[in-house]
Amino acid sequence: MKVLIYGAGQLARMLCLAGAPLGIRVWAVDVSTHSVVDPLDKRVLSMSIEEAISEADVLSVEFEHVPEDLLVQAEASGKLRPSSRAIAVGADRVKEKQLLQGCDIPNCEHGIVTHTDQLDALVARLGSKLVLKASRDGYDGYGQWRLSEVDQLSALKTELAGLDLNAVPLVVEKMIPFDRELSILGARDAGGNIVFYPLAENLHHKGQLHLSLAPAPEVNGELEAKAREIFTAIANELDYVGVLAVELFQVGDQLLVNEIAPRVHNSGHWSQQGADTCQFENHLRAICDFPLGATTSLCQSAMVNIIGCDGDFTQLLGIPGCHLHWYGKSLREKRKMGHFNLIADSYGTLAKSLTALSEALPQEQFPCLAAEAKALARQCAQ
Amino acid sequence: MKVLIYGAGQLARMLCLAGAPLGIRVWAVDVSTHSVVDPLDKRVLSMSIEEAISEADVLSVEFEHVPEDLLVQAEASGKLRPSSRAIAVGADRVKEKQLLQGCDIPNCEHGIVTHTDQLDALVARLGSKLVLKASRDGYDGYGQWRLSEVDQLSALKTELAGLDLNAVPLVVEKMIPFDRELSILGARDAGGNIVFYPLAENLHHKGQLHLSLAPAPEVNGELEAKAREIFTAIANELDYVGVLAVELFQVGDQLLVNEIAPRVHNSGHWSQQGADTCQFENHLRAICDFPLGATTSLCQSAMVNIIGCDGDFTQLLGIPGCHLHWYGKSLREKRKMGHFNLIADSYGTLAKSLTALSEALPQEQFPCLAAEAKALARQCAQ
Repeated sequence: MKVLIYGAGQLARMLCLAGAPLGIRVWAVDVSTHSVVDPLDKRVLSMSIEEAISEADVLSVEFEHVPEDLLVQAEASGKLRPSSRAIAVGADRVKEKQLLQGCDIPNCEHGIVTHTDQLDALVARLGSKLVLKASRDGYDGYGQWRLSEVDQLSALKTELAGLDLNAVPLVVEKMIPFDRELSILGARDAGGNIVFYPLAENLHHKGQLHLSLAPAPEVNGELEAKAREIFTAIANELDYVGVLAVELFQVGDQLLVNEIAPRVHNSGHWSQQGADTCQFENHLRAICDFPLGATTSLCQSAMVNIIGCDGDFTQLLGIPGCHLHWYGKSLREKRKMGHFNLIADSYGTLAKSLTALSEALPQEQFPCLAAEAKALARQCAQ
Repeated sequence: MKVLIYGAGQLARMLCLAGAPLGIRVWAVDVSTHSVVDPLDKRVLSMSIEEAISEADVLSVEFEHVPEDLLVQAEASGKLRPSSRAIAVGADRVKEKQLLQGCDIPNCEHGIVTHTDQLDALVARLGSKLVLKASRDGYDGYGQWRLSEVDQLSALKTELAGLDLNAVPLVVEKMIPFDRELSILGARDAGGNIVFYPLAENLHHKGQLHLSLAPAPEVNGELEAKAREIFTAIANELDYVGVLAVELFQVGDQLLVNEIAPRVHNSGHWSQQGADTCQFENHLRAICDFPLGATTSLCQSAMVNIIGCDGDFTQLLGIPGCHLHWYGKSLREKRKMGHFNLIADSYGTLAKSLTALSEALPQEQFPCLAAEAKALARQCAQ
């Protein structure tokens, strides 16, 4: 089998590594150069995108922001999984909200803004604590703004004045004082079979995921069932094929959908060490029509992102259950360079390993780790 | 880090896959063509062996029968791990026996034969049930002969007459009615630290490994300790660095060493799914001076070799805990083409999966599987 992935980053790389044992050859499209590359060493392969599409059995994506012309071409081949509609839902917050509303899935109260004048009415309806998000990846990166008090509204309007909100509307959400962020990942095959990974608890810092714990501590069967219900509704509505990630806010015993990612997801990297079948293998199994693999967690896992630094961390492999995954990328600020997976047979042991890791890593690049390790240790002591 | 492996078969391939996340680039020497290749797709790389040796941080082997000139060249670089002495012990049964005798490690009673005339005295000493093994890979493959009755001795002598036994002596062993075959694998680093995998039980058929169960059922602490003691004595004597495999015969509560393999080993493939750190990662960690990884088994595992066939087995991935590892090789009789790893949370569940696998696979190519699955199921029922 041959699989062509749009995007040549770490997710394509890890799909490639997971595919090799299954006899699946993975190629990647570098969407910035339109070249077909080997996802492991980024070597440019001597074939055009057209040739790769023709030779591949299945096409898939490692990120949702694939340029539209490429996506149209991929869809036209009849080999794209998940569908371009599913990918578009992940790439466009307006479509995402429409899907959630259509399926009656709880999410943050919000409005769509195509002109800054509409903001006053929204403040009146949702209050003055708002998050404004560009609906598509159309500005500088993932444009987000915050409103904390009504007084700031006029300054915010000035800031937004230069944007073409008709072309790229804003999704404006009520800021939710959530208890924690969770995610549910699962794989769905073309026959509609679904396997679910256990919920992961995620810690973000400045908009980037820093830490995932899986299975998330203190999750009861009811919460897990609620998450699976949400996942199923979304996946079935999209007739989804592959691994899908749904980011959730937990508020008491309620779950609100924050974001949908139509692909393997950073909060599922723990599954490489911690689950029977990792998310990368299950994505390939799903899109290649192989039977889905068991998603049982074999232990407790913590995934720690390595962001914007690339020191020599090899000696940290001496921490019990510590594994290291480098992405082979050159260093850039805020760039995800790799991740640690820690595994243990209990949260208590995991907390100890996490503490050891946090003490060995530079605090500047891993700002939340020490506090999180302490919190987990405290939680286990109760 | 860059690691050059002598031998470009499945072991180099799986070392390569295990190295990528650690930032270790693995190249392989195809010893038949003397070219340096990518272990995944066998692409010939544009560098000579000399250049690869110079650029690599560490050199290692995936098999012990590396031609002597290559081994001398590798050793001269000062980067070879394990040492050529350790590799030679695996490649030469006379050296292996000398090591075992020197360390006072129990093994099969035997004699070294450099002339067929010596066989009579050996029959007188060891009895008439003997296995004769070429001490080195110098004849056709792994030359072995059997003697069951004294009457066959003269015919056997005639058969052996053409061989230069001075150049390649025979190791003649008393045939042992052992209870079962086990193996112990572990990794030793340059500082002398050792981690042990749990004992695996191995089923051979016509000289080839067909099935491994790990951790081996019905192993008590005493037996495990005995195996670790043997491993430690051998590894320390050789100042061994890397993963080492020791094949054992269990006779009652005794362990006799059958063979030493100075490399990652087929009976350790289960660790890819079943252990915290797989043998391939631990070999790389050891030879690259990274801390060794935990070898804890996370579940019960069965490894089933795919030998001399390459059907479409993808639908078997639907068996609970079933994983597939293809080696990307063209089909040849008796060739190891890939393996299944089955994992389960108990031997009972494992027996069910093994039964399902045995029923789905062609009996001709998997001749022992049904019986073994039944035996494991029966054992679990007791």
